[in-house]
Amino acid sequence: MRALWSAHAICDAGGAPGSRALAEEVPVALVYDGATQAVMMASPADLEDFVLGFALTEGIVRGRAEITATEIVDQGRGIEARAWLAPGAGAALAQRRRAGVGPLGCGLCGINSLSEALRPLPRIARAARLTADSPGRAMAALAAAQPLQDATRAAHAAGFWLPSAGLIALREDVGRHNALDKLAGALARAGIAPDTGAVVLTSRLSVDLVQKAAVIGAGVLIAASAPTALAVAEAEAAGITVIARTRGNAYDIHTHADRIGPEQAA
Amino acid sequence: MRALWSAHAICDAGGAPGSRALAEEVPVALVYDGATQAVMMASPADLEDFVLGFALTEGIVRGRAEITATEIVDQGRGIEARAWLAPGAGAALAQRRRAGVGPLGCGLCGINSLSEALRPLPRIARAARLTADSPGRAMAALAAAQPLQDATRAAHAAGFWLPSAGLIALREDVGRHNALDKLAGALARAGIAPDTGAVVLTSRLSVDLVQKAAVIGAGVLIAASAPTALAVAEAEAAGITVIARTRGNAYDIHTHADRIGPEQAA
Repeated sequence: MRALWSAHAICDAGGAPGSRALAEEVPVALVYDGATQAVMMASPADLEDFVLGFALTEGIVRGRAEITATEIVDQGRGIEARAWLAPGAGAALAQRRRAGVGPLGCGLCGINSLSEALRPLPRIARAARLTADSPGRAMAALAAAQPLQDATRAAHAAGFWLPSAGLIALREDVGRHNALDKLAGALARAGIAPDTGAVVLTSRLSVDLVQKAAVIGAGVLIAASAPTALAVAEAEAAGITVIARTRGNAYDIHTHADRIGPEQAA
Repeated sequence: MRALWSAHAICDAGGAPGSRALAEEVPVALVYDGATQAVMMASPADLEDFVLGFALTEGIVRGRAEITATEIVDQGRGIEARAWLAPGAGAALAQRRRAGVGPLGCGLCGINSLSEALRPLPRIARAARLTADSPGRAMAALAAAQPLQDATRAAHAAGFWLPSAGLIALREDVGRHNALDKLAGALARAGIAPDTGAVVLTSRLSVDLVQKAAVIGAGVLIAASAPTALAVAEAEAAGITVIARTRGNAYDIHTHADRIGPEQAA
């Protein structure tokens, strides 16, 4: 297990020496059935969650049961996060590879053509209802539980908020996609269905995060910062509630606002 | 030319309707000699700069002269940014493709193995000197010239600061890598050598941004937020000055501090 941050010498604007904690950033190869699917620069923690979660959010597997084993191997110049797939999922991935679908990257930037950029998304079948004060409380709980960010100011976090229990999971990473992938893996390993609560993100909301959320069935996204127009359009189509610019008790609801606030009489 | 942002209906935490400007995010295929090298989600502006700058920062070409023509074609579902390479550069790229080097993605996440993750970087031969008040002035100038960010709060910017002339170029994008790639292209098209000033970034400083800067010979990086440990290590080795957490007149100097402040007597 590597450290997540380390102290480094600096000098300030006046030339005085000092020290800062800097986040470690490590090449992590995501390896399925012995073949590398992507290499990500990531925080070297929660890598079992990462290799499972990436497989889920990128549609390599449909559930945790399709991963039969994982192994984390530090190679010095980087870390291999290896997973082995159940026979059906492994055959499907091998078929995708033969069809020329290359490394997936962050879900977008490793693809080969415009037609692959906006993959068809499943429509959310079920999602949690949240009270109007939940987004602010979820974001406050997230902000209070980020040791990597507190030390380095260089990390994002993704958390999971249950209406009945509050913030029950949180993963940090130097990359915002990685934080969400790690959270997806953590939820799957804990047996928590993403349709029972809300995913809470410290970051802006770009379309790739909406795509990942849709694939795992997460129907409510709460972001600290603003979404893009394409993220909102894809969320609208996929049936995802997008809440953004969450600051204190204020926020914007962009899509599927009916899940927030008191339930309406039928 | 597409709009960079558009107005969208929201409702606030109290359920009152309102409107927000959201940044457009469009799949952009970077196509060299007819083959797609990567697809990025990007702001649909400055795409001639983007296709040239990506070629420079990813080492597809060594200079603007190796691109013989560019063409931007809106395909509806996305935009193709096409470039044609001079014969020597085209042959080298074709050889890389035959060798199995796939889509490059953001420079890291489309690659196939850990050994490709930390590419050998050229060492900076020459860099500008900056006065101690330059980082604060450069960041203030950058913050004052971001219409996309002002409207949407969802964009990053990369600018170029000349000690003699101030901020002479700025590019915005929903992606921080894209903003730097667009800036690199803009500088090349204007005939401005990156070793004559400082690159100023609104974002955190991850290792991929340091790699791109090193490849184009940019020897001074000024970032608004914190760097990762790996970004600092690679910058130290490549001879790049890293200034981070630039806020008002305060900042941290992580590497090669001798280029900041009054010149020392020999």
